[in-house]
Amino acid sequence: MALADTRFLTRRRTLAAILAGQRIDSMLVTHLTHVRYLSGFSGSNGALILHKDLSALIATDGRYTTQIAEEVPDIEALNARAVGVELLKTISGPRRVGFEADYVSVSELKKLEAACPEDVTLIPISGVIEGIRLTKDSLERTRLAEVATIANSAFAELLAAGELRAGMKEYEVAAHLEYRMRIKGAERPSFDTIVASGPNSAKPHHGAGDRIICNGDLVTVDFGAHWAGFNSDTTRTVMVGQPNDFQREIYDVVLRAQSAGVAAATPGTPLVEVDRACRDIIEQAGYGDFFVHSTGHGIGLDVHEQPAAAVTGTGELAEHMTLTIEPGIYVPGKGGVRIEDTLIITNGKAQNLTDLPKELIIID
Amino acid sequence: MALADTRFLTRRRTLAAILAGQRIDSMLVTHLTHVRYLSGFSGSNGALILHKDLSALIATDGRYTTQIAEEVPDIEALNARAVGVELLKTISGPRRVGFEADYVSVSELKKLEAACPEDVTLIPISGVIEGIRLTKDSLERTRLAEVATIANSAFAELLAAGELRAGMKEYEVAAHLEYRMRIKGAERPSFDTIVASGPNSAKPHHGAGDRIICNGDLVTVDFGAHWAGFNSDTTRTVMVGQPNDFQREIYDVVLRAQSAGVAAATPGTPLVEVDRACRDIIEQAGYGDFFVHSTGHGIGLDVHEQPAAAVTGTGELAEHMTLTIEPGIYVPGKGGVRIEDTLIITNGKAQNLTDLPKELIIID
Repeated sequence: MALADTRFLTRRRTLAAILAGQRIDSMLVTHLTHVRYLSGFSGSNGALILHKDLSALIATDGRYTTQIAEEVPDIEALNARAVGVELLKTISGPRRVGFEADYVSVSELKKLEAACPEDVTLIPISGVIEGIRLTKDSLERTRLAEVATIANSAFAELLAAGELRAGMKEYEVAAHLEYRMRIKGAERPSFDTIVASGPNSAKPHHGAGDRIICNGDLVTVDFGAHWAGFNSDTTRTVMVGQPNDFQREIYDVVLRAQSAGVAAATPGTPLVEVDRACRDIIEQAGYGDFFVHSTGHGIGLDVHEQPAAAVTGTGELAEHMTLTIEPGIYVPGKGGVRIEDTLIITNGKAQNLTDLPKELIIID
Repeated sequence: MALADTRFLTRRRTLAAILAGQRIDSMLVTHLTHVRYLSGFSGSNGALILHKDLSALIATDGRYTTQIAEEVPDIEALNARAVGVELLKTISGPRRVGFEADYVSVSELKKLEAACPEDVTLIPISGVIEGIRLTKDSLERTRLAEVATIANSAFAELLAAGELRAGMKEYEVAAHLEYRMRIKGAERPSFDTIVASGPNSAKPHHGAGDRIICNGDLVTVDFGAHWAGFNSDTTRTVMVGQPNDFQREIYDVVLRAQSAGVAAATPGTPLVEVDRACRDIIEQAGYGDFFVHSTGHGIGLDVHEQPAAAVTGTGELAEHMTLTIEPGIYVPGKGGVRIEDTLIITNGKAQNLTDLPKELIIID
C-alpha cells in the first residue's frame, strides 16, 4: 500500500482550522485543482468533503478506482459519477456545509440544494483555499523548481540548436520549444506559447502566428511547462540580427526595470512597491505609456494566481510566496521587449527559478 | 473594414427566436465558447448581450480592442474589464434577461444581481445554445474537416517516419505527434494525447507515460488537434511486432464493431441503436464486460458535446450532427484495442472525417 504524503493532511488541517473560525462544520470541495491540492488526486472527476474533525471522504467514478487508491491512500473513496451530490448525501445534520462559490455554477448549486439533507445549510465560501495556496509548502516549492527547469532548459537548448532564427515562422519556433519541453517530461505547455516577432513584439498578447522571422526583428518568447499539476512562466526577448539604437535602448530599459523589480522583491515589501520599482525606471526613460500591464503575479497550480504586483496591488510579499517579475515596453508598429523571471521567497530572500541569461542575446 | 460573416448573425437569429418562445427579452452570454460561436470573437475576456430585436452589444477589455473590431465588425463593442456586469448595466427594464446558468458561478451571479437595473429579472437558461450547436452549419463543417485533416495527416506521417516503434517511450511518441500537428497549424492538442502501450492499452484513460514500447505490444493512440476554436478526435491501435492470437482476435472484434457502428450512423437512427450496433458485436464475441464506456459523442467547439451514443442515449441522429464511433475492448493485464472515427452527417449520410486506414497496422 502506498504511504500518504503527510503534506496533504497538513493542508487539510489548515483548512479545517480556518473553517472552524467561520463556524463551518464541513467543506465540500469540488474545484478539481483544490481536490488535488488537498488530497493528491489528479483524475478528471472528483470531489472531497472535509469535516471539522479532519475526517474526510473523497469521490470519483469507476474509471479512477485504482488511481485514487494509489494517489490518496489515507481517505476513503466513494464510487460515484455525480461526486458532489453523492458526497453531500453522506452528511447528517444539523450542519453548516461550505461550498466553493467561485467554481460551483448556478445549475450545480441547484443540484446540490436538491440533494441536501434536512438540517444541512449550504454556505458560499470564497478565497479560503486560495489563501492557503498563497504560501507554498515544501512539496510545492520542489515541484515549482522542477517544472521551471524543464521549461528553461528546453529554451536554452532551443537557442543552442538554432531553432530560433531568421526564416522560421513564429509557430515553428513554438512547435520546437513545446516538443523540447514535452521530451523533458512536461505534460503540456502551461499556456499557449507566445512567439512575437518584429511588429508583433509590440502586442503583449500576440500568440504564435505564421509571420516569418526576419533579420532585424526583436522576438519575444513567453512560455511555460505544466507538470504534476504545477506551472512555469518565463519570457525572454532575443534579437535576430544586429539591434538598432531603438531596440538596444528599450531592451536596456526593460532589463534595468526587471532587475530593479527582482531586487525589490524581498519579504515584507508591499507588492505595490515591487511594481513601482519596475515602473519608475520605465517612466523615467520616457516609456511609461508603453508599459501597459502590471509587473507580475503568483504562480503555482494556476498560471496566474495571487499575489499581484500591480499599481493597485494590496498586501506585501512574504515567505514562500511566488511572484513573476515581467515588465515590458510595447511601441506599436516599432516593436517591444518583455523579460520575465519567476521568483520564490525562501529563507528571507527571493530565489530566482529562472536560470537563464538576461543580457541581450543576438542571433546572427 | 472587415466584412461580417453572416453565419454569426444567422446563429444569433436562431437563438433570439428560441428565447422569444420562452418570453426572454435579452440573453447575457458569458461562456467564452458561446461568445465566439455567436460573434466570432476569440479573445480570453468577453461577453455578449443579444436582444430579441436582434440588436446586440459585445464587451471586452483594452487588450482586445483592435482584435474585436476585426473579428466582430457588425456588433458595437464596449470597453470593460467586468464584461458581464457592464453589459447588464446597459439594459433598461422592464425586461426578462437570460443568463447561462451552467457556466455562471454562484459568486458571479451575485455580482450580476448587484449590477442588475431595476425592473430587470435574471432568468437561468440551460442548454439552449448547446441545442443550436448540435446542428453544424457550413462554417463549422468546413472547420471540422480541416482540423481533422491536420491531426490525421500528422498521425499518418508519424507512422511513415518510424516515430512509433519498439524502444521509444510513450511520451516520446506523443511529443512527436504533437509537434507534427503543431507544424501543420494546430494551436494545441485538443486534449492530452494518449499513447497506451502493452498492459497500459487495457486502461481506457491512460495518458502517455514513460513506459518503453516493446515488441509484442498493442499501442493505442488517441489524439486530436485544436484549431480556430474547433477540435478533432481520432484513435488508432497499432501492433508493434507480430500479434498473438488474443491480440488479433480483439482487434478483429473491435474493427467489426466499429465498422458496424459507422454503418448504423444514418440520419433518423436512434442514438441508442448506434451504440447497440457496436455493443452487440462485442457482446456476441464474449467481450461485453470489457467494453466499459459508451460508443461515441458529438464534437465541435468542445471535444465532448451532444449527441451521445450510449446505452442510455436519447434522441436520434440527424442531418449535420457529428458523432465519434469509438468502441474498445480492455482486458486488464493483457491489453486493449480502441478504434475511433469522427463522422458528420451530410446530405443524408455519414461522411467520415477520419481518413486513415483501419486494418491492423503491424510495425516490425
